[in-house]
Amino acid sequence: MPFLSNLNAWSALHLTVETAATLAFALSGLLEAARKKLDAVGVCMVAGLAAFGGGTLRDILLDKRPFFWVEHALWLWALLALCIGAMLFLRSHHFHLTERAMQWPDAVGLGLFAASGTQDALAADMPAIVAVLMGTITAVFGGVLRDIVCNEIPRAFSDHRPYALCAFAGAWVVVGMHAFDATPAAALLAGVAGATLPRLLALRYDWKLPAWRTEHPPAR
Amino acid sequence: MPFLSNLNAWSALHLTVETAATLAFALSGLLEAARKKLDAVGVCMVAGLAAFGGGTLRDILLDKRPFFWVEHALWLWALLALCIGAMLFLRSHHFHLTERAMQWPDAVGLGLFAASGTQDALAADMPAIVAVLMGTITAVFGGVLRDIVCNEIPRAFSDHRPYALCAFAGAWVVVGMHAFDATPAAALLAGVAGATLPRLLALRYDWKLPAWRTEHPPAR
Amino acid sequence: MPFLSNLNAWSALHLTVETAATLAFALSGLLEAARKKLDAVGVCMVAGLAAFGGGTLRDILLDKRPFFWVEHALWLWALLALCIGAMLFLRSHHFHLTERAMQWPDAVGLGLFAASGTQDALAADMPAIVAVLMGTITAVFGGVLRDIVCNEIPRAFSDHRPYALCAFAGAWVVVGMHAFDATPAAALLAGVAGATLPRLLALRYDWKLPAWRTEHPPAR
Repeated sequence: MPFLSNLNAWSALHLTVETAATLAFALSGLLEAARKKLDAVGVCMVAGLAAFGGGTLRDILLDKRPFFWVEHALWLWALLALCIGAMLFLRSHHFHLTERAMQWPDAVGLGLFAASGTQDALAADMPAIVAVLMGTITAVFGGVLRDIVCNEIPRAFSDHRPYALCAFAGAWVVVGMHAFDATPAAALLAGVAGATLPRLLALRYDWKLPAWRTEHPPAR
Repeated sequence: MPFLSNLNAWSALHLTVETAATLAFALSGLLEAARKKLDAVGVCMVAGLAAFGGGTLRDILLDKRPFFWVEHALWLWALLALCIGAMLFLRSHHFHLTERAMQWPDAVGLGLFAASGTQDALAADMPAIVAVLMGTITAVFGGVLRDIVCNEIPRAFSDHRPYALCAFAGAWVVVGMHAFDATPAAALLAGVAGATLPRLLALRYDWKLPAWRTEHPPAR
Repeated sequence: MPFLSNLNAWSALHLTVETAATLAFALSGLLEAARKKLDAVGVCMVAGLAAFGGGTLRDILLDKRPFFWVEHALWLWALLALCIGAMLFLRSHHFHLTERAMQWPDAVGLGLFAASGTQDALAADMPAIVAVLMGTITAVFGGVLRDIVCNEIPRAFSDHRPYALCAFAGAWVVVGMHAFDATPAAALLAGVAGATLPRLLALRYDWKLPAWRTEHPPAR
């Protein structure tokens, strides 16, 4: 039955990419928490927020239950193991996990979360602009919550590099593919590419968002 | 049919005031984001949070779907257009949108969101104090989320001027009118007046909330 | 009817402890708001967030309505009275409510919220690890929201003292008791003890979480 085996191959691919993406987002939380000198509990919480916060916020907004991490509670165990493992490892080694090394999985995570978040919203019959917003929120708000808890202005809103904008672009690709009756798998892959490729290009060529010039006084 | 035309006049008035209020709140987010030097994406996100955050939080707490901005997705387009327009305009002109100029629509927005949020909660059979809290949250939490994302202590909680307190007063007016079986339109108008007028008076005569005197050490 | 009177005794005990716990959490918000020089509105809001934020977030995640403070709206009046009373009292007396004096009710609150939050999640058929997370969130996120609004890194994540970890331990005790078919009352009491006792011991003997050693540069 070729259909089933295709389905299985698709599931395996989807699971692999999603795992890598969640891992990258969790690591980004772990590193930020370490930089801010949070304790072991804070590290786990911030890593969890970064990994699951965007998808959870999307599901709350769409009123969709159970959450991903409730249906697949194994992920919470994996997160806990990751955090404890990382803490033990970092205590015994002078390991330097550079931001650079994380850019690839982070870019893939951005694309995958944007595309799958948009598809979830389209499946819930949301209008196009709402679906795009949901995809962008899924991809970006894990990092936003991570930065808020760490008492920083969210990097996605302030570092003048295209990040949410790439998620936004990828989400529109998904919406466009759906409008042309593409299969969900094709729409997902196109959406991931539509977010991840611009992100990698932006990192490679150091693209910047236009600066916001204002004459307002800096103090409020 | 006078009823229908009254209804239409009422709808038109309601829509006009609500549009002005949402616009004022979006602009407040836009200005704060500009002051904090956020990038284009951050400006749009913070403007959106300020405009829709309070109502969305109320709907999550009341478990009411679809959200305002899902049912009327046009508003998201309008927000996007507003932000892009403001950015282009501010880049080409030395335009100074003063906080003073925004106080009027902001005060109207405060009143309208407080009154309509309270009515939504009463329609969902909430007790009076809960309905008042919901009205206050609707009016105030857009700005609170805006300030949290911009890494500030929320102004509504710290500037010692009556703001949430005016929303609170207006919400009680709505509850009182409902208790005396007033029509929804009358209750809404009275509630808006009950929040907006004190706010404008407070701004005009520079009223302050009583200071909180404490002997606690400032450090924790 | 001994069953009924037992039930009543149990209800009375439960209510007493819960009241003390909510009070302690509200006071922690009140003090933090005072330290940060918030105004009267901010003090009430932050006290309310600290007291009800954790349970409300748990109910949103579990999709459980009505909220505690909607069903028992009297609590909102009590909170308002507490805040106004505290403000009047602190203005007229040089009263020094030390952090030390609050450690006992806070530790009891931590235990009770952790245990009851875990039971709520088990009653909603959540897996063990999710129930434990819900218990921990119930106990800890009131304080986390309090600190975020006050523009601080949440103390529960950064002060290197076991706090969330004690809630986590107590939540596991509840899960274990349920697995062995204990009565809900026994599971609750054991869970409270399992969180509160380690917390008090940690305070008494100044236990610290292991430090997180990292070679990352402090700046991002």
